Amino acid sequence: MRLLRYGEAGKEKPGILDADGKLRDLSGHLPDITGDALTPDGLKKLAGIDAKSLPEVAGSPRLGCPIANIGKVICVGLNYSDHAAETGMAVPSEPIIFMKATTAINGPNDPVIIPKNSKKTDWEVELGIVIGKKAQYVDEANSLDYVAGYVLVNDVSEREFQIERQGQWVKGKSADTFAPIGPWLVTKDEIADPQNLKMWLDVDGQRYQDGSTKTMVYGVKHLVSYISQFMTLMPGDVIPTGTPPGVGAGMKPPVFLKPGNVMRLGIEGLGEQRQDVKAYQG
Amino acid sequence: MRLLRYGEAGKEKPGILDADGKLRDLSGHLPDITGDALTPDGLKKLAGIDAKSLPEVAGSPRLGCPIANIGKVICVGLNYSDHAAETGMAVPSEPIIFMKATTAINGPNDPVIIPKNSKKTDWEVELGIVIGKKAQYVDEANSLDYVAGYVLVNDVSEREFQIERQGQWVKGKSADTFAPIGPWLVTKDEIADPQNLKMWLDVDGQRYQDGSTKTMVYGVKHLVSYISQFMTLMPGDVIPTGTPPGVGAGMKPPVFLKPGNVMRLGIEGLGEQRQDVKAYQG
Repeated sequence: MRLLRYGEAGKEKPGILDADGKLRDLSGHLPDITGDALTPDGLKKLAGIDAKSLPEVAGSPRLGCPIANIGKVICVGLNYSDHAAETGMAVPSEPIIFMKATTAINGPNDPVIIPKNSKKTDWEVELGIVIGKKAQYVDEANSLDYVAGYVLVNDVSEREFQIERQGQWVKGKSADTFAPIGPWLVTKDEIADPQNLKMWLDVDGQRYQDGSTKTMVYGVKHLVSYISQFMTLMPGDVIPTGTPPGVGAGMKPPVFLKPGNVMRLGIEGLGEQRQDVKAYQG
Repeated sequence: MRLLRYGEAGKEKPGILDADGKLRDLSGHLPDITGDALTPDGLKKLAGIDAKSLPEVAGSPRLGCPIANIGKVICVGLNYSDHAAETGMAVPSEPIIFMKATTAINGPNDPVIIPKNSKKTDWEVELGIVIGKKAQYVDEANSLDYVAGYVLVNDVSEREFQIERQGQWVKGKSADTFAPIGPWLVTKDEIADPQNLKMWLDVDGQRYQDGSTKTMVYGVKHLVSYISQFMTLMPGDVIPTGTPPGVGAGMKPPVFLKPGNVMRLGIEGLGEQRQDVKAYQG
């Protein structure tokens, strides 16, 4: 299934794409797509609905983040060996994890706002894992049982705030609009191998990132198990799993986002995003 | 006002302490104490209620965290100069901030569970700021307008996970039960000076922490303004502001929590907590 939320920000309705890619309204069946809808029981119920029987949604409405009320966004750092190299940092001997404030969450095609006083706003195309079942101390062997599906995430990052402002990366990861998520949540049954997905990101038509989840250092199975040793994962939590090479900070000389830029990004099977970059207007 | 939530975990009701310290039930007036209840309008409505007219709650029910559905717990690191010294780290030139997973939130007197594979579980008594109004890029001069009140927090920390496991402190701050909050949220009108509150923490009757918010490096006003430059703060968000000297990791030799230990802690005007320390039972 490809689940989504459509409509005005803060007033999104649940929807689903049918087999022909038509947007259908799910609000007769559930109030919203929260963690509860993403549990094994919740997804089973949704899978029993004939999407073609649902009302078709006219036009091309705005899309919101496909999951409502996300409790945690837990990101993985330096998880592609080539990306670690371009940042001048070593591949970590175990996953680096950090948080992104949930207030940063944005629709997949909403504008990205450069924060006040920012000089180094940058991009990161990432595969996001969506949790479907409460996970604490789970083994790698069965960790996929705790996964509902996958989403495309742009882990927008302010490098000065992240690296040069006395520490803990959350500071550069959490501005409003810094977490475009979507267009859809794709349930895991539709992704044959999460470790073999092409991914890319363009700014103003120039391809900066052109990678594959093949070159992840720590894969999906390991990450879910690993993170669950340190905190309890809940249905609806999202884990952006790190980015391949080609971020702006890695260019020689570095390239950062400016108002007027357009980002486009995608992951095979998970759809695409498009963001206009704008200046903060106080 | 001293606001609280009482009853079984996950089914707490809103309550208030009256002038005599008697627990009164607020559930005739609001469903729960969420961020909405903590806005200037929400607090004004609550202040208009005569607490003595509310039903008295019999006995000594369990207390939950006094705020429901907290969106973010943003912690401040090394914010007391003496504590920085005991950890062997320099006082930072601007605040260090990191997140604690909201799944770590616990009632003030609930047991604290030592995580699986933990050898270095430690304590930190902290003054918590509770946000009452959406805050983005606020000035220090009027940042208290965005504060609803204060709470006592034990920022329980696993030092090996925090420091020795490849980075980002969130890893050692986020286990279940690692964020006892309460007993009450005390509205800011009742705290004459948040920078002059005594604070203490005992383990098994031995006083380890004996400090005051006087020696904070970055005070409440600065922190609210500072953090709001990097992310948007929402009503109900909690900011634990760092701990004074006397954590277990700072002892010579270091002292860490063991099953059977009892922690007691308090801050002047904000009440006390008591936690039994237990081993994880898988």
